[in-house]
Amino acid sequence: MSKEQITPVEGLSALSLDALTSVAYGPEAIIVVLALAGAGSLHLILPITLAIVALLAILVFSYRQVIDAYPEGGGAYAVSRANLGAKASLVAGAALMVDYTLTVAVSIAAGVGALTSAFPALTSATVPICLAILALITLLNLRGLGASARAFLLPTLVFIVGLLAIIVVGLLHPLGLHEAQPGRSLLTTHGLQVVSVLLVLKAFSAGCSALTGVEAIANGVPLFRPPRATRAKRTEMMLGVILGAMLLGLAVLARRWHIGPRSHQTVLSQIMGMAVGRHWAYYVVSLTITVVLALAANTSFGGLPILASLLARDNYLPHLFGLRGDRQVFDNGIWVLAVLSGGLILAVGGNTNKMIPLFAIGVFTGFTLAQTGLVVLRWRTRPVRWRYHALVNGTGAVVTGLATLVFLITKFAQGAWIVMLAVPAIVILFQRIHAYYQRAALELDVGVVPAKPVGTETLVIVPVSNLSRLTRFAISEALSLSPNVIAVSVVIDQPDEEQAYGHDLARQWAEWNPGPPLKVLNTQFTSIVEPVCAFIDEERAKGDRQIVVLIPSVVPTRWRYRLLHNQIDLVLSAELRKRADVVVARVQMPLEVPARSRELANKVSNVPKPR
Amino acid sequence: MSKEQITPVEGLSALSLDALTSVAYGPEAIIVVLALAGAGSLHLILPITLAIVALLAILVFSYRQVIDAYPEGGGAYAVSRANLGAKASLVAGAALMVDYTLTVAVSIAAGVGALTSAFPALTSATVPICLAILALITLLNLRGLGASARAFLLPTLVFIVGLLAIIVVGLLHPLGLHEAQPGRSLLTTHGLQVVSVLLVLKAFSAGCSALTGVEAIANGVPLFRPPRATRAKRTEMMLGVILGAMLLGLAVLARRWHIGPRSHQTVLSQIMGMAVGRHWAYYVVSLTITVVLALAANTSFGGLPILASLLARDNYLPHLFGLRGDRQVFDNGIWVLAVLSGGLILAVGGNTNKMIPLFAIGVFTGFTLAQTGLVVLRWRTRPVRWRYHALVNGTGAVVTGLATLVFLITKFAQGAWIVMLAVPAIVILFQRIHAYYQRAALELDVGVVPAKPVGTETLVIVPVSNLSRLTRFAISEALSLSPNVIAVSVVIDQPDEEQAYGHDLARQWAEWNPGPPLKVLNTQFTSIVEPVCAFIDEERAKGDRQIVVLIPSVVPTRWRYRLLHNQIDLVLSAELRKRADVVVARVQMPLEVPARSRELANKVSNVPKPR
Repeated sequence: MSKEQITPVEGLSALSLDALTSVAYGPEAIIVVLALAGAGSLHLILPITLAIVALLAILVFSYRQVIDAYPEGGGAYAVSRANLGAKASLVAGAALMVDYTLTVAVSIAAGVGALTSAFPALTSATVPICLAILALITLLNLRGLGASARAFLLPTLVFIVGLLAIIVVGLLHPLGLHEAQPGRSLLTTHGLQVVSVLLVLKAFSAGCSALTGVEAIANGVPLFRPPRATRAKRTEMMLGVILGAMLLGLAVLARRWHIGPRSHQTVLSQIMGMAVGRHWAYYVVSLTITVVLALAANTSFGGLPILASLLARDNYLPHLFGLRGDRQVFDNGIWVLAVLSGGLILAVGGNTNKMIPLFAIGVFTGFTLAQTGLVVLRWRTRPVRWRYHALVNGTGAVVTGLATLVFLITKFAQGAWIVMLAVPAIVILFQRIHAYYQRAALELDVGVVPAKPVGTETLVIVPVSNLSRLTRFAISEALSLSPNVIAVSVVIDQPDEEQAYGHDLARQWAEWNPGPPLKVLNTQFTSIVEPVCAFIDEERAKGDRQIVVLIPSVVPTRWRYRLLHNQIDLVLSAELRKRADVVVARVQMPLEVPARSRELANKVSNVPKPR
Repeated sequence: MSKEQITPVEGLSALSLDALTSVAYGPEAIIVVLALAGAGSLHLILPITLAIVALLAILVFSYRQVIDAYPEGGGAYAVSRANLGAKASLVAGAALMVDYTLTVAVSIAAGVGALTSAFPALTSATVPICLAILALITLLNLRGLGASARAFLLPTLVFIVGLLAIIVVGLLHPLGLHEAQPGRSLLTTHGLQVVSVLLVLKAFSAGCSALTGVEAIANGVPLFRPPRATRAKRTEMMLGVILGAMLLGLAVLARRWHIGPRSHQTVLSQIMGMAVGRHWAYYVVSLTITVVLALAANTSFGGLPILASLLARDNYLPHLFGLRGDRQVFDNGIWVLAVLSGGLILAVGGNTNKMIPLFAIGVFTGFTLAQTGLVVLRWRTRPVRWRYHALVNGTGAVVTGLATLVFLITKFAQGAWIVMLAVPAIVILFQRIHAYYQRAALELDVGVVPAKPVGTETLVIVPVSNLSRLTRFAISEALSLSPNVIAVSVVIDQPDEEQAYGHDLARQWAEWNPGPPLKVLNTQFTSIVEPVCAFIDEERAKGDRQIVVLIPSVVPTRWRYRLLHNQIDLVLSAELRKRADVVVARVQMPLEVPARSRELANKVSNVPKPR
């Protein structure tokens, strides 16, 4: 069982914090909208939350089916690719990528925002703190998702158990603690709006932000230990039950205690304060919420790299996103997510409010496409009770589709237009990459049985700088490849002693008489690389031979000595790699240099010139 | 004639600004010390400056001899290596390296300091501005010293001609313009010190800071166009005459007008204001001085990389400092200097005052060692008039040695102790590197005629991912190297379709029947690299053959497509390069993919999976 893969409980900390932490802002978003119609409308929070929890149930139901049907992960992308066609799947993929990036930036900025509210002295360091947390999460994820899941398990459990316990305590003594709450009420009493259907719809949409993150588990199924689908479904169910219970409990308490907006106090903080008083339990859970808000960024690190790898597999992103690193993670996806979200944090200066209007549109687009795809799947395959399933999925699709529209319309001017531009732009990029891979495959005759391969004569060129064990090693390797071997040595004309050195080497070579000839390349005050390239050109002109440049290098067994060797080899191989007409090969000879020894040092009278 | 090499006039802007710009602080340093003894002692500036100019003449005389004797550059390092032994030369080398780094940081910080005095709003951006200038100078130097010399020529000439003209105007109307100077006099009138020998000595030492940079030309002789030595000597002479004239002129004017320290006004600014009034000429030259102060950093970029290359040639620094880049410059030395001085700027927050006490000690150590070395050289070789030459050099050595001592003693507590620690530490590093190279050469049997080279049987392993033109190309190249070729393909077990793909490839391979067999390596949810390494280990165990891994890669002719290819090759070659027991070779096939073509895209029904 691989350590890098996660269990259902670890799935809560790795892939569910985005959804769970939304209790910190979901109920608040509802109340802020309702408050526009005055204190009398605040009781509507309960029916609205009931509707949201019902939608949550539908989403959990749908995504558990997605997990079953597409255990390779990818969520909305995989569903719509299989059932709605390539275009729809690309829209889903682009929307999810935008939202994943936003989730990282928003979560971290929100967590740091809570921290700087508590310690105003840190406000000026907002961006550096954000970037430090981002760096931490990135590094943990490069070590494998298991690492971050285990690292974040404790705060996650404290948050879940603590908040649920506070809610239960609140429900047990119905009148609350009657402690005076700090801050002043922000409920206005004049210029109120009437309670309209539109207002309720707006409050519902605003509260729907509590549902973002529900899709992450289905996107990241391959991260779970086998049996993957079973474990992922279990996590999805746990997430649904816990989130639903929290949202309902908070709504009941908010209604009972007539919670309204208040200065310097979130709704969640008011409810917790009323339930258990501002004592240690309040502070522990508040602090934990700050921490897990920031850690919710981890959800994206579970999802985006897998999504990118699927897009790469389908030729919509560079194939390098499909490469796994040493620790079974898609390193490149992680790096790109870190860079993009870091850039976003820098661009908005760590200010959450600038990003909120862009948020959730992508996820809800994904919700809609995934559930529409499921309806099509049911209709095509028609399993047992398919009508019932399709009805549930279809209801979900309609409701989330409507919510997406409301988001778009109400937030358009505040930044949602950026998403409206970004998603099509990304889709076009996907398509152009896909078209390139098609053309490249055609050029390469991929899948066409090629003509028989034919070997040709090979000339091996070995750059040498002196006579040593390394020289013998390299010439031996070269002779193993071909009988045609030429050694070359570059001698810079300038100082007389260097020139003498070149003659010296030629004399020693004649004395050694190894078989292959030595060609001394004289050059005037210029780089080592140029004369070697010129010599290759000369030899290339002599006929259609394959030319191999075999670069000898020494590998000291101790790391700290590596800097002292092999510089010319690096320069030379970097330069030669730009030429497609030579095969560049490196031979490495391990070198064990004994630790300091005065005796040895005295035996050598003079050390030859470096080359 | 190489564009990268410089003419004598360019030598003024490339290697002499450090010395020339010292007129901005040298006379000031003398007056600040003299002012401790009250207004009555200010007239001493003239005799003290005369002594300094005499020392300048000696130094110019000495360094012109250094240029003749050591046209490879290296200045004090080369002289002491040849005449005073390895230890002394390492001290000279270390002292110069410390001072070069300080020069860059101090010059840039001083220039930016002058800028922020003029525009206080920029003060908070001091460090970023410093780093931006450093980046600019670094990039210019990476393009060759010629580039920076030409770029800085205009401000250098404006500075030289403008300041000399102002001095001449000042000398012509002896009473000055009698314009009221801004600021208030900082001359104290109580608690004065008496005019003692010690005070004069201190003022002399302080003024000697005007001489730093005189050594740079001798260090950078190879930068000049041939005949190098002649041109370098001409530059050295020009530098001496111009700097001497400026210092003397300023001293005469300072004495005539009783210039003392003044708030918000440098001595140079007072003299210029008195001579020509605060009109356009004053402002143009003032602004130019700000610019050339910052550009004086360039002096170090001429000197340190050459010094480092000589140390590398003599095995005291890693050989990579001896490598020239494409533009004939020692890139690595330039980078290291940029990083070190950038770090220094960051460490002191761009504050010049924190670095001044460390400054000049290194240069004066170099002066002393260079001139002592010359005395030994004269004594050993005894050319015509050697006694006279040795007397001049010896006088210089004694005076600069005394100045070094005064620097060390008076500035010890303010930071000179850092130099006292840094120089021996660097010398020890040099010695350890030297000892390592000795031991490595011994281990490598360098210079010993080795046994005859012998070729062995070779097995070529070619990782392939599908059947295409690239596959044929790579197998052909492999067959050119050895008749023993095995193709390997890694198939990840997980999804069923991938497995089917592996079978597919095996079937196609059989159909192709190219000669070499295909080995399909199945692996379960892991990286591509591991199974290849395991296969190499297996083959390695079968006998003492040379193993070559030939990695096929595609090189698109358009740069923007490079990101889309060859990822696995990179991962694989990075990993295999860690193994000394295989030769890693890359074959590159150029690929010209036509620009967008709908027609082509339609011809291909489905694109194969990326590998």
